[in-house]
Amino acid sequence: MEKILKGNAIVGQSGGPTTAINATLAGVVRGALANKNIGKVFGMRNGIEGLLDRRIIDLGESLGSSERLYMLERTPAAALGSCRLKLPSFESGSDTDIAVYERIFRVLAEYDIRYFFYIGGNDSMDTVAKIAKFADNFGYDIRIIGIPKTIDNDLLYTDHTPGYGSAAKYVATTMQEIIRDCAVYTTKAVTIVEIMGRDAGWLTAAAAVGSVINGEAPDLVYLPERAFDMDEFYASVEKALKRHPNVVIAVSEGIRFADGRYVCESTQSTGTDVFGHKPLSGAAKTLELAIKLKFGCKVRSVELNLPQRCAGHLFSKTDIDESVAIGKEAVRVAVEEGVSGDMMIFERASNDPYFCTVSHKKVANIANMVKRVPDEYINEEGNFVTRECCEYILPLIEGEDSPMYSRGIPSYIIL
Amino acid sequence: MEKILKGNAIVGQSGGPTTAINATLAGVVRGALANKNIGKVFGMRNGIEGLLDRRIIDLGESLGSSERLYMLERTPAAALGSCRLKLPSFESGSDTDIAVYERIFRVLAEYDIRYFFYIGGNDSMDTVAKIAKFADNFGYDIRIIGIPKTIDNDLLYTDHTPGYGSAAKYVATTMQEIIRDCAVYTTKAVTIVEIMGRDAGWLTAAAAVGSVINGEAPDLVYLPERAFDMDEFYASVEKALKRHPNVVIAVSEGIRFADGRYVCESTQSTGTDVFGHKPLSGAAKTLELAIKLKFGCKVRSVELNLPQRCAGHLFSKTDIDESVAIGKEAVRVAVEEGVSGDMMIFERASNDPYFCTVSHKKVANIANMVKRVPDEYINEEGNFVTRECCEYILPLIEGEDSPMYSRGIPSYIIL
Repeated sequence: MEKILKGNAIVGQSGGPTTAINATLAGVVRGALANKNIGKVFGMRNGIEGLLDRRIIDLGESLGSSERLYMLERTPAAALGSCRLKLPSFESGSDTDIAVYERIFRVLAEYDIRYFFYIGGNDSMDTVAKIAKFADNFGYDIRIIGIPKTIDNDLLYTDHTPGYGSAAKYVATTMQEIIRDCAVYTTKAVTIVEIMGRDAGWLTAAAAVGSVINGEAPDLVYLPERAFDMDEFYASVEKALKRHPNVVIAVSEGIRFADGRYVCESTQSTGTDVFGHKPLSGAAKTLELAIKLKFGCKVRSVELNLPQRCAGHLFSKTDIDESVAIGKEAVRVAVEEGVSGDMMIFERASNDPYFCTVSHKKVANIANMVKRVPDEYINEEGNFVTRECCEYILPLIEGEDSPMYSRGIPSYIIL
Repeated sequence: MEKILKGNAIVGQSGGPTTAINATLAGVVRGALANKNIGKVFGMRNGIEGLLDRRIIDLGESLGSSERLYMLERTPAAALGSCRLKLPSFESGSDTDIAVYERIFRVLAEYDIRYFFYIGGNDSMDTVAKIAKFADNFGYDIRIIGIPKTIDNDLLYTDHTPGYGSAAKYVATTMQEIIRDCAVYTTKAVTIVEIMGRDAGWLTAAAAVGSVINGEAPDLVYLPERAFDMDEFYASVEKALKRHPNVVIAVSEGIRFADGRYVCESTQSTGTDVFGHKPLSGAAKTLELAIKLKFGCKVRSVELNLPQRCAGHLFSKTDIDESVAIGKEAVRVAVEEGVSGDMMIFERASNDPYFCTVSHKKVANIANMVKRVPDEYINEEGNFVTRECCEYILPLIEGEDSPMYSRGIPSYIIL
């Protein structure tokens, strides 16, 4: 049996906001406050950036009541703040690089931290892997756990990611409403809806779930997993316009041509972020202009934009419940099983009825890789998803509940 | 006392979709089905366009159950379909123009219609006024009532319009979420949110209501009622960036410079629609580029786009209840008070507690005019709204309820 470590815990949030990332934070806090081996539970503001600057708060104080924790579970975006700081590789041997890690562990020692929880996406798991490796190499007795979150659902080894279900529910619901909106006129019109997803089309695929529920779905759905072909696109739009006047199309922001060029024009900014990502925008806008030139009919583009990742008023209850559970379980396995250097994962035991369990996996194998929508989830023509894909998504978006409201707007917590 | 007319009723929907337009339709149907002087209740598909083509359905058949009516009240966008057909002026004396009206009244006679209800915005009230005048001039014994709907809240004589409250709730809620999303990083960034409103800033004003509830509101709010000045804008953004790193700005799509030019570039299409409106898009995008050039910081623009008018999953219960009530009352005044040629209106009797009554007003004085946000609702600098403005809006967005859901997505009715 693992040695029980006694000490404090710290938790941070990193990467892009989601609707469920605070539910996981609440889960960690609930788990840690209830665990007799853990003293205080600290939060780092703006992830590892705040840890380095000692911007650290006592979460037991600010989240001590169950009402506050309930509100936190229903508050979108990272309540502790986030960062996109990329840690250097300490294996370079460079003194300045190693100094960053020494500083991290110095701060952790000051706060008597024995448990370190980091909630984030792909890039954050890179951070977790590096810190865990450093602790391991240099004999720091601190257990380090990554807990996934991303609306992109693109992390390996886990059946799905916390945050995906709520974003997918927002996309699926909004598509139902946009399709309804577009159906009111009789004149020919094409509406192109752009959905987040740089390398993986999971979120865009959620636009199609109506196809297996009520038959209401976009005419065409394009994911970045398949090369985008303008000739196929024109032909498919033409066919759709023959079926009915109001054609609705869902596209991932990251769709590319066969030669690798993005369909979008990079209208937001040039260059790349610190992780080497190229900021994207405008796939739908580009296609809007193409359709207008080709068919001369009314065309418009709609970018779902920020609301798809922060619409706290429309969360999936399944997603929020699971996001709390994975946070709690992270604390349990760290304390009771001595797990460290792992990312928490979901394993789907059954789809009908839906049943998922929480487990964990070495994080070094997970960071910086992308789980794409598999071939069998995309139709042969590459312009829609299969029933199997929709059946994978549907249990994740099920269940409704609501934030608290005050005078007509949601009451969200501020830490 | 007015002569009681016995016969059938017909109802149509026109103009842009809203979240509440079907609630009003349900109100008319409820009122008409319960009234012993009304036989059948028909619906025209795509408004007056469908009437001319005899695309008419029996709503008693398709909406006979209270479950169906309940679902209809919670279904966004015009379930009967809409149109943007502008009727010619029969007073021109042109034979082809008069023929349009003769055809309308021929179809109405075929269906033994004595009550005509038309749900729509400014342009639709133009249609109501013309048909009522024709009936009056040529002695057709048909009562014609306009029932307002528009997310723009820009109709004269009514305290507010059905549909505005739900759209305003969507804007107010989404702004809370976007502000939360933007707050997670520490790097300087400006986010510009573009909200619908060509000539009136009512919907954009709703972005600010958090300022009187929880203090969470955009830094700056620009309405089309005030000339937009780039120097003031740069100075205000600079000041805001000194206060905190995450600046959020709400702008109406229709903001213009003092010389009348729209801030937006007309990127969607050129020309004007049949009512002479110039399709707008891109005020936020234009300002995004301006800020990037001026300050060099991260900037992004978010167009709330279609979801703000069709997000049936997030309606204001006050709005839906009132929209049903105004539809029912339209039937009552037409039958029992012999009203014709009027638009139904709301009159606010009290703001705290909020209390509104339904009345009606001659439609000829209403059509084709715009109710703008009054001067005293906008601050001196022209870059925010007043507390009084927020207190006007707040009762309209209060109350939460939800559509029915099936497997995670809303169940909306199709007629």
